Amino acid sequence: MDHRADDIAATMHEIGRRARDAAAELAFASSATKAAALEAAADALIRATPEIIEANARDMEYGRDKGLSPAMLDRLMLDEARIRAMADGLRAVAAQPDPVGAVIAEWDMPSGLHIRRVRTPLGVVGVIYESRPNVTADAGGLCLKSGNAAILRGGSESFHSSGAIHACLVEGLVAAGLPADAIQRVPTRDRAAVAEMLRMTGFIDVIVPRGGKGLVGLVQSEARVPVFAHLEGICHVYLDREADRDKALRVVVNAKTRRTGICGAAECLLIDRPVAGTLGREIVAALIDAGVRVHGDEGVQALDDRVIPATDADWGREYLDMDIAARVVDGVDAATGHVRQFGSSHTEAILTENDETAARFFARLDSAILMRNASTQFADGGEFGMGAEIGIATGKMHARGPVGAEQLTSFKYLVEGDGTIRP
Amino acid sequence: MDHRADDIAATMHEIGRRARDAAAELAFASSATKAAALEAAADALIRATPEIIEANARDMEYGRDKGLSPAMLDRLMLDEARIRAMADGLRAVAAQPDPVGAVIAEWDMPSGLHIRRVRTPLGVVGVIYESRPNVTADAGGLCLKSGNAAILRGGSESFHSSGAIHACLVEGLVAAGLPADAIQRVPTRDRAAVAEMLRMTGFIDVIVPRGGKGLVGLVQSEARVPVFAHLEGICHVYLDREADRDKALRVVVNAKTRRTGICGAAECLLIDRPVAGTLGREIVAALIDAGVRVHGDEGVQALDDRVIPATDADWGREYLDMDIAARVVDGVDAATGHVRQFGSSHTEAILTENDETAARFFARLDSAILMRNASTQFADGGEFGMGAEIGIATGKMHARGPVGAEQLTSFKYLVEGDGTIRP
Repeated sequence: MDHRADDIAATMHEIGRRARDAAAELAFASSATKAAALEAAADALIRATPEIIEANARDMEYGRDKGLSPAMLDRLMLDEARIRAMADGLRAVAAQPDPVGAVIAEWDMPSGLHIRRVRTPLGVVGVIYESRPNVTADAGGLCLKSGNAAILRGGSESFHSSGAIHACLVEGLVAAGLPADAIQRVPTRDRAAVAEMLRMTGFIDVIVPRGGKGLVGLVQSEARVPVFAHLEGICHVYLDREADRDKALRVVVNAKTRRTGICGAAECLLIDRPVAGTLGREIVAALIDAGVRVHGDEGVQALDDRVIPATDADWGREYLDMDIAARVVDGVDAATGHVRQFGSSHTEAILTENDETAARFFARLDSAILMRNASTQFADGGEFGMGAEIGIATGKMHARGPVGAEQLTSFKYLVEGDGTIRP
Repeated sequence: MDHRADDIAATMHEIGRRARDAAAELAFASSATKAAALEAAADALIRATPEIIEANARDMEYGRDKGLSPAMLDRLMLDEARIRAMADGLRAVAAQPDPVGAVIAEWDMPSGLHIRRVRTPLGVVGVIYESRPNVTADAGGLCLKSGNAAILRGGSESFHSSGAIHACLVEGLVAAGLPADAIQRVPTRDRAAVAEMLRMTGFIDVIVPRGGKGLVGLVQSEARVPVFAHLEGICHVYLDREADRDKALRVVVNAKTRRTGICGAAECLLIDRPVAGTLGREIVAALIDAGVRVHGDEGVQALDDRVIPATDADWGREYLDMDIAARVVDGVDAATGHVRQFGSSHTEAILTENDETAARFFARLDSAILMRNASTQFADGGEFGMGAEIGIATGKMHARGPVGAEQLTSFKYLVEGDGTIRP
């Protein structure tokens, strides 16, 4: 290991050690104290608006010099409205119920024992993200709410913006009498810090990567620490023979076009054969009229001559753009078969008025989120009532779907007896 | 990779592929079908008692030739009573509520969405165990109940016994019309099969190791698949200044001596200074009178001249024998400090009549199980009302404490709208 990497490792271990210590204190901070820290951080953000915008200007200049795309520059940009949105987000998290200490289950045993299962923090959460500086506030706030210490590692493009936001979070912690180390930020742009985080099993309990497939894939393959993440959101919409025309038109167009760059955007439409020539044709035309490039199999090509022939590469593809794959299938079982083969276990929707068909779709798929007669774009912690989310997970262990404060907790059993011994 | 390892890898991948296929079918098997399979397997075990005892005799002979200790030979041994106990265990699991499909939470959103979080199986569970052949029935039964396919790899000592028991489980599956591959057994004693299982991330969702520290440590350090396990059960009992004399005497002696070889046995007694010379002295004497070797610090040595001086190696030591470490501490905070430094996050108990002190002990520790005025020997799935357990976990992710059928599940969100789109 060279000198530089040695230094980074030492820095990261020191951050890890301080996070562990802060986590031990944070674990039994009261709900009121944590809420006060979040409110104080929100106030600090509003007060520091000029400084944050100034720091952001430096990042924007660096980004333009580096030749970032307009879309990436837009993600990076902060203005007064976006800073206010961050502050509102912290206040929303503050107002949510505290998951820590909540009794998940409670029962008595014939032995005389009274058993409670209660939520506890996970410990230390590492967050690795790319250009969006608001993740600093969102992730820091959720970790604090759930009693976890956070180690935040933002993208190098948002280095100054994230620093200014982080300072406000620390201000909130200190104002509430909580340890400043409860939310730490990696103070270097060096990528070796990320590699180090992924191996810090002694200090970090879970890593949440937020960003593109490149970042998430790297984290998933290299991490020795557990990871909450989804690699891709290849969301499927199945148009059943018993779909309602108006609902289907509305939902499919919304699922594809509302925002194309988010993980809950629909990427593949599966059309039940009996309605291909009728409702299927109408929906394909509506998508194309809305500006979507429809990549169809032969059955779909027959519906509209503007359909682009699909190739094998179109199945299971995450376009994140105004494109959708489309295929004619024979009923719900063929649809679930297609999803099992090409899906990413994120979110799938069925359009049907038939309860049995919907139940079959729900039973035969094991994606984190399954929807009926609703847009896949609802795959979001806020829309699930969680106040905020640190990300969406598709793994089967511990957390799935939108990951909010509650999903950042573990639990322990509290058992009370009265001198009770085991025979 | 040599030829032999190549063959093992191919065998294991074939087992993995068949387990995945079986899991897909098992995931939507009805509760009644799964219960019928468990009942049929229990019947088969009773019917096959002579064959199982015969197979066990071959293992016992192999074990004696190999020079296994009397304790290990006892764990290996099966008789009519133990086979009946296995069958009863399967029937108890059959009678438990089916976790799969259970609605964990359910709510409505202002958008009009109705959201349900329901339990789903994890998929494929790998179980790696040592000499106790009954793990074959217990683990196979719990996996089936929770809708997971199982891959069982028992110790080479119990090879024939496990094979005979496994045949009964398969008989139950087939009788109920479920895929025989839902419970598979690794058909070789070759240790390379274990190494292969630990890397089969594409086929196995979680590994549960059952056995000594050597096995569990190997699995924890080598596995790329998530692991539910505890490495050690270094259970602490803290005798507070406000403990009730009779309860304390009863609980401490039971926690140490009821069974010394299980993970819930107490390994360290922490005595609050104000009661060291009174109740502490009485309890130390009671332990020594019961045949326990007490390894004490200077404060404990002063209580009874039969106390063996403790060395640094005694703190955080899992004796699994008639030994206990003992130390005088200054109050509940010193006790939790000791546990944080030397504990294994398994089970700790406090003896006190003071509710605030108990609450402080519960809040400041994060072991999987915390007890008040009750014996640590209750750390067991059966004693927690889970019907059975596949093991006890001390990790913070997903499952903690006794791991029963419910803990072998994940969940998914089922979302229903009415043509609902996201603005």
